[in-house]
Amino acid sequence: MGYKHQAEDIINTGMELIRTKGYHNVGINEILKASNIPKGSFYNFFESKEDFARKALDSYGSSSLEMIKSFLRNHELSPLERLKSFYGYLIDANEQEGYIGGCLINTISMEVGGISSVLAGSADQNFNIWLDEIAICIKEGQDKGEIRTDYPPKELAEYMHVGTYGAFSRMKLTKNRLYLDNWFEMTFNFIET
Amino acid sequence: MGYKHQAEDIINTGMELIRTKGYHNVGINEILKASNIPKGSFYNFFESKEDFARKALDSYGSSSLEMIKSFLRNHELSPLERLKSFYGYLIDANEQEGYIGGCLINTISMEVGGISSVLAGSADQNFNIWLDEIAICIKEGQDKGEIRTDYPPKELAEYMHVGTYGAFSRMKLTKNRLYLDNWFEMTFNFIET
Repeated sequence: MGYKHQAEDIINTGMELIRTKGYHNVGINEILKASNIPKGSFYNFFESKEDFARKALDSYGSSSLEMIKSFLRNHELSPLERLKSFYGYLIDANEQEGYIGGCLINTISMEVGGISSVLAGSADQNFNIWLDEIAICIKEGQDKGEIRTDYPPKELAEYMHVGTYGAFSRMKLTKNRLYLDNWFEMTFNFIET
Repeated sequence: MGYKHQAEDIINTGMELIRTKGYHNVGINEILKASNIPKGSFYNFFESKEDFARKALDSYGSSSLEMIKSFLRNHELSPLERLKSFYGYLIDANEQEGYIGGCLINTISMEVGGISSVLAGSADQNFNIWLDEIAICIKEGQDKGEIRTDYPPKELAEYMHVGTYGAFSRMKLTKNRLYLDNWFEMTFNFIET
């Protein structure tokens, strides 16, 4: 297994550990052990745990963007139907994994956003790239008359996506989809014309 | 300083440290040092860090409930105006402290909700007591014709208060009140008749 492959492997494994267990709760040795990489070799790949987390955020941001596009650029559905299929999928996916994780960007934002400007910057940048993609779909929905037009697309995208973060917070506590479904129902009620 | 006073002092100091810096990021010794309590004496007061955090959550829940009541039971204002004054205060308070903290219940929910059933249970219980208080005010607003009546008061309370948690997550990253103001504007637009 080459250097690049090993680094990617550590990123993917560590990303999932941090997403489900938290940034400070997961140590470097735990990440290496789960990745089957010899103990002590972490600094061959990353300058620091913060450097690792920044790369994990970027990798998570990119793969999530591809997933978002697979829903929001599916032109077989109307823009509003695409948004519903995307957020419906997010809720189902969280249910299937037992409500343990939520979004890595949200986890990092809450836990480290206030104390690491490097990770806050990276999380914000990746989040904004998602928002731009969601805003494109909302704009199409506004042009088709499906979505209210009294707010700019990006503001509606922010409101929608930021809303899921609150619902994820409740989901992690209560281990059920009640809040996610409540969020979905009311938010679509709000944006639909 | 007596035992009870010392325990309360550790709870209040440690609560603020965890709210702003995270659960795993704050060690027992840091809490004791900030409370001016001799190192090593933590277990005279608490069974474990988890036991400490549970007591901190309950204390935070109670003092926040008093604060919530001071706004939502102020009968000089209409129910809708009371809700606006409460959430307006929350946003201003977060701005004044530099957007570093947000809500302890949200921090604990995100960071530890998935891994400690004790803390998840305590956070959920305290959150629900707040929701009941918010729902009473929403019900009054519905009875007065100020607030939409097509959802039950508690569901609207959940939607509102859970929404702030997503906005707090963004606030911690971006260090500004943009998302909080956006949330306020759209959420009140949604609930007002």
